[in-house]
Amino acid sequence: MEINRIGWIRTDFPGKFGIPRQSGLVEDLAGTVVFETKYRNADAFRGLEEFSHIWLIWEFSESARDKWQPMVRPPRLGGNIRKGVFATRSPFRPNPIGLSCVRLERIEMHPEYGPVLHVRGADLMDGTPILDIKPYVPHADSRPEAEGGFASRHREDRLEVELPEELEKKVPEHKREALRGVLANDPRPAYQNDPERVYGFGFAGLEVRFTVREGLLTVCEVVPQG
Amino acid sequence: MEINRIGWIRTDFPGKFGIPRQSGLVEDLAGTVVFETKYRNADAFRGLEEFSHIWLIWEFSESARDKWQPMVRPPRLGGNIRKGVFATRSPFRPNPIGLSCVRLERIEMHPEYGPVLHVRGADLMDGTPILDIKPYVPHADSRPEAEGGFASRHREDRLEVELPEELEKKVPEHKREALRGVLANDPRPAYQNDPERVYGFGFAGLEVRFTVREGLLTVCEVVPQG
Repeated sequence: MEINRIGWIRTDFPGKFGIPRQSGLVEDLAGTVVFETKYRNADAFRGLEEFSHIWLIWEFSESARDKWQPMVRPPRLGGNIRKGVFATRSPFRPNPIGLSCVRLERIEMHPEYGPVLHVRGADLMDGTPILDIKPYVPHADSRPEAEGGFASRHREDRLEVELPEELEKKVPEHKREALRGVLANDPRPAYQNDPERVYGFGFAGLEVRFTVREGLLTVCEVVPQG
Repeated sequence: MEINRIGWIRTDFPGKFGIPRQSGLVEDLAGTVVFETKYRNADAFRGLEEFSHIWLIWEFSESARDKWQPMVRPPRLGGNIRKGVFATRSPFRPNPIGLSCVRLERIEMHPEYGPVLHVRGADLMDGTPILDIKPYVPHADSRPEAEGGFASRHREDRLEVELPEELEKKVPEHKREALRGVLANDPRPAYQNDPERVYGFGFAGLEVRFTVREGLLTVCEVVPQG
């Protein structure tokens, strides 16, 4: 079956490092969904503003994904325990389809781009192709009683964040809370825990560098991205 | 992008009539997911049994779907109000991708088919191609505070069901509760409300015929499907 993108998302993450590992974990993260020319039709979105949340179905476009793997090592399990790929949201799956629930903040009618969706809490890289938008229907989609297995047991692994004032000033004011949320969620690449190492990732046109020691993340540098 | 099915689902619905309009509405409905030969690998499902619910991402394979439509008429709104296709779960969307949350009852290791997933609450037609399986991660996917717009306001439209004992006896005992749930959810084709008309749909190898008058659904015939 041939599937084509209907649009793409703009976020503050130029690369995959730093992106929260599920949608909704950092509610302050803002993103916008822009559509291909043929879907720039206000009619196609009529009524969507009644929903507070939407599903993004998207393409894992940037993962080095030569082929599917029966088992993967979820980062949240420290990278040394293997689980079946269908028991995870890993990109190494047969079809490179991603699924994210985001808050729909507003629908803008942009003079050039037509309907643009402003969303919050997206765990997607900048430029990720969007394959479908669906309303979040709470009576079908929200199952608060669900058991989340190994994915749930690690949801509380938060880091304390030390972000010196002179470095925070380099971050646009309306993006500071989002950055703090991203840092608290531990943006280190999987499998690494080296207190001497300086890690870094791109965010909102900046390179953010930090160290992690015993549950404390300390930002040591914030510089414009080259 | 080329997307291929990883398996297919077996349900009691040979046709689209009668299928609940969202997953989870009729929890008694049983289904099984069977995989293509290359995914019949127990490793690929390791850890999935820790989750009580899973996402099925599937293909709208049977809908008359010549092309997408900017606006559709949701059945739950009576068929005379139009909404944008992206504000609905309608099949008339640019990419024929469906999304359903189902309960994962157990994973069977079948001697011939390998891993088979036994699920409950599926709103899929028998034979629907499955494109992906993902664990339901409650802290990312469950948003009990979400506003469901027009889709929520109509969730309580239930019919009273009259199923005479001599007709109920023709239904296998373990499928009776599911059938009652399907009927209570109003399985009439969209846009119709004719108290004289006998409606029918296939379920578990049977043809179930009924009438609806003033909120009361009366089953008038249950016969083996031809």
